[in-house]
Amino acid sequence: GRPGLGLPGRRPRGPARSTREPWGLLGRPCTPKPSGSRVAARRGAGPFGRRNIVLSNPKKRNALSLAMLKSLQNDILHEAESNDLKVIVISGRDGQKRFLAILWLTGVMMLIRNHPVPVIAMVNGLATAAGCQLVASCDIAVASDKASFATPGVNVGLFCSTLRCPGESSVALEMLLTGEPISAQDALLHGLLSKVVPEPRLQEETMRIAAKIASLSRPVVSLGKATFYKQLPQDLKTAYCLSSQAMVDNLALRDGQEGISAFLQKRPPVWSH
Amino acid sequence: GRPGLGLPGRRPRGPARSTREPWGLLGRPCTPKPSGSRVAARRGAGPFGRRNIVLSNPKKRNALSLAMLKSLQNDILHEAESNDLKVIVISGRDGQKRFLAILWLTGVMMLIRNHPVPVIAMVNGLATAAGCQLVASCDIAVASDKASFATPGVNVGLFCSTLRCPGESSVALEMLLTGEPISAQDALLHGLLSKVVPEPRLQEETMRIAAKIASLSRPVVSLGKATFYKQLPQDLKTAYCLSSQAMVDNLALRDGQEGISAFLQKRPPVWSH
Amino acid sequence: GRPGLGLPGRRPRGPARSTREPWGLLGRPCTPKPSGSRVAARRGAGPFGRRNIVLSNPKKRNALSLAMLKSLQNDILHEAESNDLKVIVISGRDGQKRFLAILWLTGVMMLIRNHPVPVIAMVNGLATAAGCQLVASCDIAVASDKASFATPGVNVGLFCSTLRCPGESSVALEMLLTGEPISAQDALLHGLLSKVVPEPRLQEETMRIAAKIASLSRPVVSLGKATFYKQLPQDLKTAYCLSSQAMVDNLALRDGQEGISAFLQKRPPVWSH
Repeated sequence: GRPGLGLPGRRPRGPARSTREPWGLLGRPCTPKPSGSRVAARRGAGPFGRRNIVLSNPKKRNALSLAMLKSLQNDILHEAESNDLKVIVISGRDGQKRFLAILWLTGVMMLIRNHPVPVIAMVNGLATAAGCQLVASCDIAVASDKASFATPGVNVGLFCSTLRCPGESSVALEMLLTGEPISAQDALLHGLLSKVVPEPRLQEETMRIAAKIASLSRPVVSLGKATFYKQLPQDLKTAYCLSSQAMVDNLALRDGQEGISAFLQKRPPVWSH
Repeated sequence: GRPGLGLPGRRPRGPARSTREPWGLLGRPCTPKPSGSRVAARRGAGPFGRRNIVLSNPKKRNALSLAMLKSLQNDILHEAESNDLKVIVISGRDGQKRFLAILWLTGVMMLIRNHPVPVIAMVNGLATAAGCQLVASCDIAVASDKASFATPGVNVGLFCSTLRCPGESSVALEMLLTGEPISAQDALLHGLLSKVVPEPRLQEETMRIAAKIASLSRPVVSLGKATFYKQLPQDLKTAYCLSSQAMVDNLALRDGQEGISAFLQKRPPVWSH
Repeated sequence: GRPGLGLPGRRPRGPARSTREPWGLLGRPCTPKPSGSRVAARRGAGPFGRRNIVLSNPKKRNALSLAMLKSLQNDILHEAESNDLKVIVISGRDGQKRFLAILWLTGVMMLIRNHPVPVIAMVNGLATAAGCQLVASCDIAVASDKASFATPGVNVGLFCSTLRCPGESSVALEMLLTGEPISAQDALLHGLLSKVVPEPRLQEETMRIAAKIASLSRPVVSLGKATFYKQLPQDLKTAYCLSSQAMVDNLALRDGQEGISAFLQKRPPVWSH
């Protein structure tokens, strides 16, 4: 099967689950891995504050089944309040559609929206149905130029109504009405993605963004993410009021004070998170 | 004059009207047509559930006059509830501006938004004023790379305020403020279009999309279209609630049940519509 | 330092201020200017109804300081109700970040939104923080292909929550979360800009747009701009009602009547403003 939401690579064996993995693994997606490395879900944040969640359901070509969604939900929620967690990257190994999962997916999408740290989707192959909607609901979505996206539910009589993009930008209705796949470039144009990079640079670029976010103040980023979504549906005046208040609150944060001090003293800031 | 909203071709003679045409005609836009073929408005849906509405007002270079809008409105409404109708494609022959028509156009635009089947605009030449807004209000808009779009009303002292795109995406204010034409590529970028294709492929691609939609379950597509627009202006939580409820309703449809059964039984679905 | 919001050129000397300049100056950005030409703020509109506001704070690399913002606010408000003023173009000489200014920037952004004439941003270099948000809040933003945009506040612990685009389109959250610069092309894609042109054509194209707007009826353009923003956050039905009413009001304007008469009489309109 064509590789799906996430990384190309050997199809692993084992039960349906998402796993939290240390950074290193994702850096070598195409080489054989030690057999145990995927199985043991790593607790807590990975090195440098990044948590990598890899969707893996080898028997079902990585279908976003209910079991998978439950596992994903657990992995997203796990130690969400820990200051050690700065950013989450979600990717997959093989992707296939599971239409019914979409009905339960909205819970996971709300989790991502309300999560205190940014959630990044990294997409390589074909992300369909629930997989496509999961990508659309992440705060940042990076895809390779080989990726494609489809909401084929309409082919089997189930319209994927829940497709929404983080910036409220509109997915072309054409995609939903025809169920046909669109390219990464078209997905970028329609607001489904933040960035498209050549396939060999997908992990490097995604992890560079994740590392950048992980180097920032967690409470500042959390407040910023929450404010962004809060002001988004508001009219301009209300949006500016909300945003201005958030910036005052931001300045009052210990890390806000530290940032300004460091900037004025021309030294790197030291975040207390 | 430059060809307008729709197809290039010989300028036909006759009174202002839109006509519903069988599929075949649109497949040969540049060859002479039998003289009577355009005149007789075909009742009901064309073959395969598609209705082609061709805006044609040869004496006035296809201006969207009031007579034309009334004819268009009739053609859009005609047997809208018939299960045989699956999709509507609107195109034109020659296009020119008629500013006052814009005031009456909002009624037609609401008709398209609330219509039970998807309405597709196919654009080849220059779509201006009411023509441009008509394109923007269709559910799907496919244009050739030779098409361009303008709202020149401001040049004659009438600002085209009613320009809205289906996905609520923003047309550049520049277009409205200057009245100058933008290219198909820019229109795509600003959310006015769903897709731009090379001119020779315009009809093939538009009709491929129409055929795809016509092959799907009409009640599923209708519910999906209505839900898409209903959830669009809502905040995320309300949108997800509306969408989830719609997917439950969708599953309860006879075609929803058939789709799932067919999928599980690995056979093509047979829609009862 | 890299040139900033606006034009490349020699770094001028003098206190922080924005200046209103006659048209000619901007046409020769890279040649030495008469020493006094920048200092004397020109009152009223420039030739042809255009006012050029050039942000200039040479000692601080054109930082958008409070003094600068106050000066900018004065220049935007100056004779806003004069019929001689048709359009405002804002550019800069050298750009640098001033994070605290963002807190006071929302006032300026509301001024631009509520201003009776269109405000155009012309961007050449790197527009950061408040500079980037100022660009996003202009009605039209034209940038050279050498321009870039960043909201680096998060690097010093201050999230730039107030970034909003005129068409309510979404800036990629990635930009806000990482603080990293994006190219003019990406800014165009994310709705931050109206147009990107090759660097040598930046002024010509910006001024062509300004001249076009300046040639139109001021009350028609004012009503159109106000209506555009009023209907933007509304649902489709409300938006169409607002827009239709605005078009009726537009037709009742003296310039609305003149425009229609001129159109019917096939002569150029003569605006009374």
